[in-house]
Amino acid sequence: MPSYAAPVRDTKFILDQVLEIGRYANLPGFEAATPDTIDAVLEEGGRFVSEVIAPTNQPGDQEGCTRHPDGSVTTPASYKDAYRQFVEGGWATLAQPVDVGGQGLPHVLAMAFQEYLNSANMAFAMYPGLTTGAIAAITAAGSDEQVARYVPPMVEGRWTGTMNLTEPQCGTDLGMIRTRAEPAADGSYRLTGTKIFISSGEHDLAENIVHLVLAKTPGAPDSVKGISLFIVPKFLVDGDGSPGARNGVTCGSIEHKMGIHGNSTCVMNYDDAVGYMVGEENKGLAGMFVMMNAARLGVGLQGLGIGEVAYQNAAAYAKDRRQGRALTGPAEPAARADPIIVHPDVRRMLMEGRAYNEGLRALILWVALLGDLSAKAPDEAERLEADDLVGLLTPVIKAYATDKGFLVANLAQQVLGGHGYVREWGLEQFVRDARIAQIYEGTNGVQAMDLVGRKLASHGGRALQSFLGIVAREVGEARAAGGEAAEVAERLGKALAELQAATLWLMANAMRDPNQAGAGAYPYMEVMGIVSVGLMWLRMSVAAQRVAAEGGEDAFLRAKLITARFFAERMMPDAAALRAKIEGGAEAIMALPAEAF
Amino acid sequence: MPSYAAPVRDTKFILDQVLEIGRYANLPGFEAATPDTIDAVLEEGGRFVSEVIAPTNQPGDQEGCTRHPDGSVTTPASYKDAYRQFVEGGWATLAQPVDVGGQGLPHVLAMAFQEYLNSANMAFAMYPGLTTGAIAAITAAGSDEQVARYVPPMVEGRWTGTMNLTEPQCGTDLGMIRTRAEPAADGSYRLTGTKIFISSGEHDLAENIVHLVLAKTPGAPDSVKGISLFIVPKFLVDGDGSPGARNGVTCGSIEHKMGIHGNSTCVMNYDDAVGYMVGEENKGLAGMFVMMNAARLGVGLQGLGIGEVAYQNAAAYAKDRRQGRALTGPAEPAARADPIIVHPDVRRMLMEGRAYNEGLRALILWVALLGDLSAKAPDEAERLEADDLVGLLTPVIKAYATDKGFLVANLAQQVLGGHGYVREWGLEQFVRDARIAQIYEGTNGVQAMDLVGRKLASHGGRALQSFLGIVAREVGEARAAGGEAAEVAERLGKALAELQAATLWLMANAMRDPNQAGAGAYPYMEVMGIVSVGLMWLRMSVAAQRVAAEGGEDAFLRAKLITARFFAERMMPDAAALRAKIEGGAEAIMALPAEAF
Repeated sequence: MPSYAAPVRDTKFILDQVLEIGRYANLPGFEAATPDTIDAVLEEGGRFVSEVIAPTNQPGDQEGCTRHPDGSVTTPASYKDAYRQFVEGGWATLAQPVDVGGQGLPHVLAMAFQEYLNSANMAFAMYPGLTTGAIAAITAAGSDEQVARYVPPMVEGRWTGTMNLTEPQCGTDLGMIRTRAEPAADGSYRLTGTKIFISSGEHDLAENIVHLVLAKTPGAPDSVKGISLFIVPKFLVDGDGSPGARNGVTCGSIEHKMGIHGNSTCVMNYDDAVGYMVGEENKGLAGMFVMMNAARLGVGLQGLGIGEVAYQNAAAYAKDRRQGRALTGPAEPAARADPIIVHPDVRRMLMEGRAYNEGLRALILWVALLGDLSAKAPDEAERLEADDLVGLLTPVIKAYATDKGFLVANLAQQVLGGHGYVREWGLEQFVRDARIAQIYEGTNGVQAMDLVGRKLASHGGRALQSFLGIVAREVGEARAAGGEAAEVAERLGKALAELQAATLWLMANAMRDPNQAGAGAYPYMEVMGIVSVGLMWLRMSVAAQRVAAEGGEDAFLRAKLITARFFAERMMPDAAALRAKIEGGAEAIMALPAEAF
Repeated sequence: MPSYAAPVRDTKFILDQVLEIGRYANLPGFEAATPDTIDAVLEEGGRFVSEVIAPTNQPGDQEGCTRHPDGSVTTPASYKDAYRQFVEGGWATLAQPVDVGGQGLPHVLAMAFQEYLNSANMAFAMYPGLTTGAIAAITAAGSDEQVARYVPPMVEGRWTGTMNLTEPQCGTDLGMIRTRAEPAADGSYRLTGTKIFISSGEHDLAENIVHLVLAKTPGAPDSVKGISLFIVPKFLVDGDGSPGARNGVTCGSIEHKMGIHGNSTCVMNYDDAVGYMVGEENKGLAGMFVMMNAARLGVGLQGLGIGEVAYQNAAAYAKDRRQGRALTGPAEPAARADPIIVHPDVRRMLMEGRAYNEGLRALILWVALLGDLSAKAPDEAERLEADDLVGLLTPVIKAYATDKGFLVANLAQQVLGGHGYVREWGLEQFVRDARIAQIYEGTNGVQAMDLVGRKLASHGGRALQSFLGIVAREVGEARAAGGEAAEVAERLGKALAELQAATLWLMANAMRDPNQAGAGAYPYMEVMGIVSVGLMWLRMSVAAQRVAAEGGEDAFLRAKLITARFFAERMMPDAAALRAKIEGGAEAIMALPAEAF
C-alpha cells in the first residue's frame, strides 16, 4: 500500500519565505492566521490525512461506489467514518466565513490543506471539494435567505453540494442545455431533465445534498443567455432547517470510470423536482462561474496532490530497490547491487517530479493568496491587480498542473517498472485518478482557449502586462543580486522572451484569423506554465539564498537551489520549441477536410 | 464499443511506394510476396481482426483472466474461439519458415499484420506474439532436435511460448537471478525457483506451453555470465511429439494490473521442473536476446497499434459530436452546433495522432524490412548495414513508439472529454493497455541506455554514422528536388543538426563521466525518435509527390503532404530543446544525496 507524508516543511517555506504571508497579518482573516495557527493546521492536517484519510484510498478504489435498486448509492465502506472524522475535526470549515460557521482563515491556508487531502484520497476529497464550490456560488449569487438556509449545514459538512451542468448532448457548449424549469405558484420552480457526469451526485455521507442545477425557464433564449441557476435539494428543507420530504431528483445510474472509483459519478434524473432560482433569471452562468473558477484551482490542486504522493512513493522505492550498479562503479560494494536511485535516468524522473510538484505548489498557493488579496487588500489597485492575475493564471493552473500531475504520476509509475503496473503498489491508481483532472471542469483545451481567447484580451491585455512586468522585474533583480538564483533568472529571462514573442505573434495573427489563436492556444498555455512555474523557482531560489545567508543553510535549502537549476536546465528550453509551434500557425492543422480524418 | 478498420491503404502505400518492396522480389521469401499476396494478407487480415478479434477486446478487458484453485487459468470467454479461428486462418504462420510449417513470407509483412492484431486486441495478440519470440530463440540457439520437437506445433499455434526472466528480486539486473537448474542423469535439468510477471504464463488457449526460462546451474558465475537458457514445457513431450506428463511448473497467482486484463500475467513456480538447456551453458542471455530484440520491435508495434485504434475512434467521435461553433463562424448554420472537428485544438490532437501513427508505421516497417535484408540481402555490406540499423533503431522504436502510442491514446481520450474517461467508449482501456508497453521488455529508460551506452559506441559508431549519412543524403536530395517535400527536408535538416550536435556533446563528455551519458540518454533517444520519424515523413512526402506527379493525385496523398508539414512544424522544433536538455548535463541530476529524495 502506498504511503504519504504531508510536505509540511515545503508548504511552510512557501508561505513564510516565498509568499511572506506575515506581511498580511493586518488583513481580515489573516490576523487569525498566526504562525502558530498555520503550523497547527499544516502539522495537524497532515497527520490527520495521513492517518485517517490515506488508508481509505486503495480500498476505496477497489471497492468503488454501488448504486442500489432504490437509487441510493453507498460509498466505499471506509469512507463514512473517515468523513465523520473530517467533519468533526472542522477540516471543512477552515476558510469559511465565521458568520456561517467557518473559522475565517485565509483561503491560501485552506488550499494548502486541500493539497494534502487530494494526496491522501482524491476521490474522497471531491465530496467536500464540490461542497466548497457550491457554497461559494450560493454565497455569491444567492439571496440572504438562501445563504442562511443552505450554507451553514454545508459549511459544517452535514450537507454536501454538487454542480449540474453536463447533459448527454452537451458539456462544453452549455447553450444546448435542455433541462426545463417551470415556474410554480409559490415562486419556486419545477425542474425536469437529465444531467450526467455529476460527481458526488448521490451518496451516503451526508444528511442532505444541495444540487446546483443549470436549466432553462420557458421562453428563455436558446443559448447561454437563457440559462438560470437553481438550488435543488435532495430533501426539501423544513421550516426548522432540517431535511424533510424527498425531492424529485434521483440517481439513475453511476458511471464505470477509469479512476476516482470512490467518488460516485451519477446520472441525475430531475422529474418535476422543486428548485429555487439563485440570482437573476437567465444569468445563471455567472453564478456557476464563481463555482467553476474556485473548482478549477481545486482541480489544479488535484494534479499537484497526486503528483506529490506518486513522487513520494517512487522516491521511497528508488532508495529501497536494488538493481544494477552505478555507472561510475559500485556505490555500495558490500551489497549485491546498488539502490536504483544511483541511476541518472531514475533521478531524472524523480527530479522532474520534484521540480513540478514544488513549483506548482508555490504557484497555486501564490494564486490562492492573490485570491485572498483580491477581496481583502486595502488598496483598490492592489485588489484589481490580484484579481487580474487570478483570472489570468486560473486556466494555466487548471491545465498545466493537471497535465504535469498526470506526467509526474506516470514518471513515478515508470520508476517502479512492472511493479508500477500492478495494483499492489498503488501507482497505477494514481495514474488513473490523475487522468480525470485534465478532462473535467472544462478540458485542458478549453482552458487554453479561455486563456488565449478571453483572458489575454480582456481590459486590453492588462492582466498579461501585469504578469510579464512582474517576471521581468524579478528576473532583473535576481540577476543583479547574483548567486545561484541569478543563473535561474538568466534562463527565465530567455523563456520570458519566448513568451513575449509568442504573444506578439498571436496578437498580430489571431485578429485576422481566429483559428491562429485556436491552433496556438495549447502551446501558449504551456509556455505560460513554464514561465509561471519558472517564476516560482526563481522566487524559491532567492528565498533559499536569503535564508541560507541568514545562517539557516541546510539540506532542504540546498535541494531547493539544485531543483531550481534542474527546472531551468531541463524545462525552460521547451519555451523556445513551444514558441516555434505557435508560429507554425493553423494552416496544416486546418487543411484537411473533415472526411479525411 | 470502439470500432476498428485496418489502415490497409496506408500500409500498402508504405510497402509499395516508400519501401518499394517490389525491388526485393528476387530475395528468398520475397518472391512469394507478390503484390496480390500482399494485398490478400492485408485486406483479409484486416477484415479478420476487425470482425473476429476486435469484438473480444472490451469484453476481455472487463472479464479478465481467472486463476482457479488447481492453478489453471481461464482467459476471457470469447478468446478461445477467436484463437481457434486465428490458428485455423494461418495467421500465426505468415513469416515462419516453410520447413517448420510456416508460409515463408517476409517478416515485414507479418509485422504489418501484427499491427492490426494489436489494434484489435493487444492483450489477445500477446499470446501469439510471445510465441513468435520463443520460436525465434529456439530456432537461433536450440539444437536441431529441439527445433524439430518444439517449433512446428508452436508455429501452428497449437502450443504457445513464454519468456521467463523476471524474479521478485530482479528484473533489469538479470545477474541476480536465483532460479537453479540442477543437472539430471539423462542430460536434462531440474529447475526450481519463482518467476514473476510472466505474460501468457498459464492459460486455456493451447495444448501446451513452452516456457523459456533463465536459470543458473550449480557453480555458475554469480552474474549475467552465469545464466543459462532452458526449455521447460508445461507438459513433457512424448516420443510421438504429443503432450504427456504434467511438468513441475505451475501458476501460483495472477497479477491485478492496470490493463491488458485479457492476458494472464502469472507468478510461475518451478518445482523440480524438467528443463532442457538451449545452447551453451552460461550463454543463455544471448539466446534470450534474440527473443528480446524481436519482442522489442513487437512492443513498438503495440504502441502503434493502440495509437491507431484510439485515433480512429477519436476521429469518428470528433466528426459526430456537435458542440459549439467554429471560431470563424458556423460551419453548418442549419444545425444546432458544429461537429467538434471544426475546433483547431481538437484537430491538433487528431493531427498529432496521425503524424505519430503514420510516421511510426513507416519506421517500424522499414526496420522490419531491414531485418529481412540483414538475413537475405545478397551483398555482405548491405546485410551488415541493415543489421547495424536494426540494432540502432530497435531501442528507439521500443521506447519512442510506446511513449507516443501512450500519448496518442491519451490525446484520443481527451478528444472525447468525459466520455473518454468512462468505460463505455473504450478509450480509457486503450490508455490503460498502452501504458505497459513503456515498461516491459526493458523499460524505456533501459532502452535509452541501450541506445546511448551500447548501440552508439559499437564498432566505433558505425551504425550511427550510417544512419546520419542516410538522413543527410535524403535531406539533400529532397531539397534539391523541390516541392512541398523540400520544406519538410529543410526542417529535418535542422533537426539532424541538433542530433549531430547532441552526439558530439555526448562523445566529448560521456567518456569522462558516464553519468553524462545516463543523464542525456532519454532526451537523446527522443531526438533520435524525431529524426527517425522525420525521415519517414520526408520519404512519405517524396513518395506522395512522385505518385501525384505520375497522375495519381488524390485526397490520401494530399493528406500525406499536409501531415508531413504538421510533423515538421509541430514536432521537429523539439529537437533543439532536447539538445539543450542533454547539454544541461548530469550535475543537477546527480547533486542531491539519496536521502534528500
